[in-house]
Amino acid sequence: MDELKRRILAEGQNLGQGILKVDAFLNHQVDTHLIFRIGQELASRFADAGASKVMTAEISGIAPALATAYALNVPVVYARKTRPVTMTGPVFVEVAPSHTKGVDAFLMVAAEFLGPGDRVLVIDDFLASGSTIDALVRLVEHAGATLAGIGAVIEKRFEAGREAFEHLNVPVVSLAVITDMTDGKIVVE
Amino acid sequence: MDELKRRILAEGQNLGQGILKVDAFLNHQVDTHLIFRIGQELASRFADAGASKVMTAEISGIAPALATAYALNVPVVYARKTRPVTMTGPVFVEVAPSHTKGVDAFLMVAAEFLGPGDRVLVIDDFLASGSTIDALVRLVEHAGATLAGIGAVIEKRFEAGREAFEHLNVPVVSLAVITDMTDGKIVVE
Repeated sequence: MDELKRRILAEGQNLGQGILKVDAFLNHQVDTHLIFRIGQELASRFADAGASKVMTAEISGIAPALATAYALNVPVVYARKTRPVTMTGPVFVEVAPSHTKGVDAFLMVAAEFLGPGDRVLVIDDFLASGSTIDALVRLVEHAGATLAGIGAVIEKRFEAGREAFEHLNVPVVSLAVITDMTDGKIVVE
Repeated sequence: MDELKRRILAEGQNLGQGILKVDAFLNHQVDTHLIFRIGQELASRFADAGASKVMTAEISGIAPALATAYALNVPVVYARKTRPVTMTGPVFVEVAPSHTKGVDAFLMVAAEFLGPGDRVLVIDDFLASGSTIDALVRLVEHAGATLAGIGAVIEKRFEAGREAFEHLNVPVVSLAVITDMTDGKIVVE
């Protein structure tokens, strides 16, 4: 997706340690029309996946997942990291180990919104080490739902998260692939 | 907004203590097409407000704020409750005391995305006691930006949050007003 690649090169910042800051249009401030074009693009890549639901993790997955689900005309469920007072019934819980924050995140989805009838497209902002997406995939499996695919806005290929999902035999799609962030570079494919 | 009122009455749950659960379409699972009609409706109510930016607080404000910002063709900024590794520069911080969670939330916005040039429409999912929205308003003031208005999807009028904003002299809009939740009732205006 050329527009996204241009924005990453123009506005992304390499903070070192493989951390890419795209807070100007994706993570803190969101370019709403860009995010909807991203959603349309992801939806078109998964047009044949038969997804009945999109799932993501709060917080920064919400915008691209919502836009993708809108384009697919299905609901989106975002896994919670803290249990809100309204989450009263049984929940599925998986742990996503964090490499950058040092604190493991618990991802929770209420059983009432995820079950055997669902074909789930997992969407997140980044595919890096893959730990968040892996926890979302385990939530899908845990609930007896079917995984329809995995999509990310930006992939850091050098973190090799993608390889963890090869055995799942579902399409794994990212719209911009970062291949190198050494020495302050941002190389986008 | 009749469609929203119908959904609240059909799918909302009164959990007692004034807590309304709308996780089926607004807070945990999001009906993507409903949320975009909500965004269009909020945008139309603020069509003359001249907003250059929409601001909300993570987490459950993101979906309605994104949809409203999309309809207004402006960016959305969501205030963070934890400081991500990418938030490297100066930030504005305000505290939102929580009545339901017992833990105060710090709301942070990077100074690079909020400043004197911005006319900010504050959007949240709920207007209840008003403490989250009040913290967002203080962020706007703190940054030297101008407040263009305040919008919420659902207002709990019996919590009287609205009264705290009267002195601001900006439009305060909610699309569904809950007037009574005593004795298990959900009364929507």
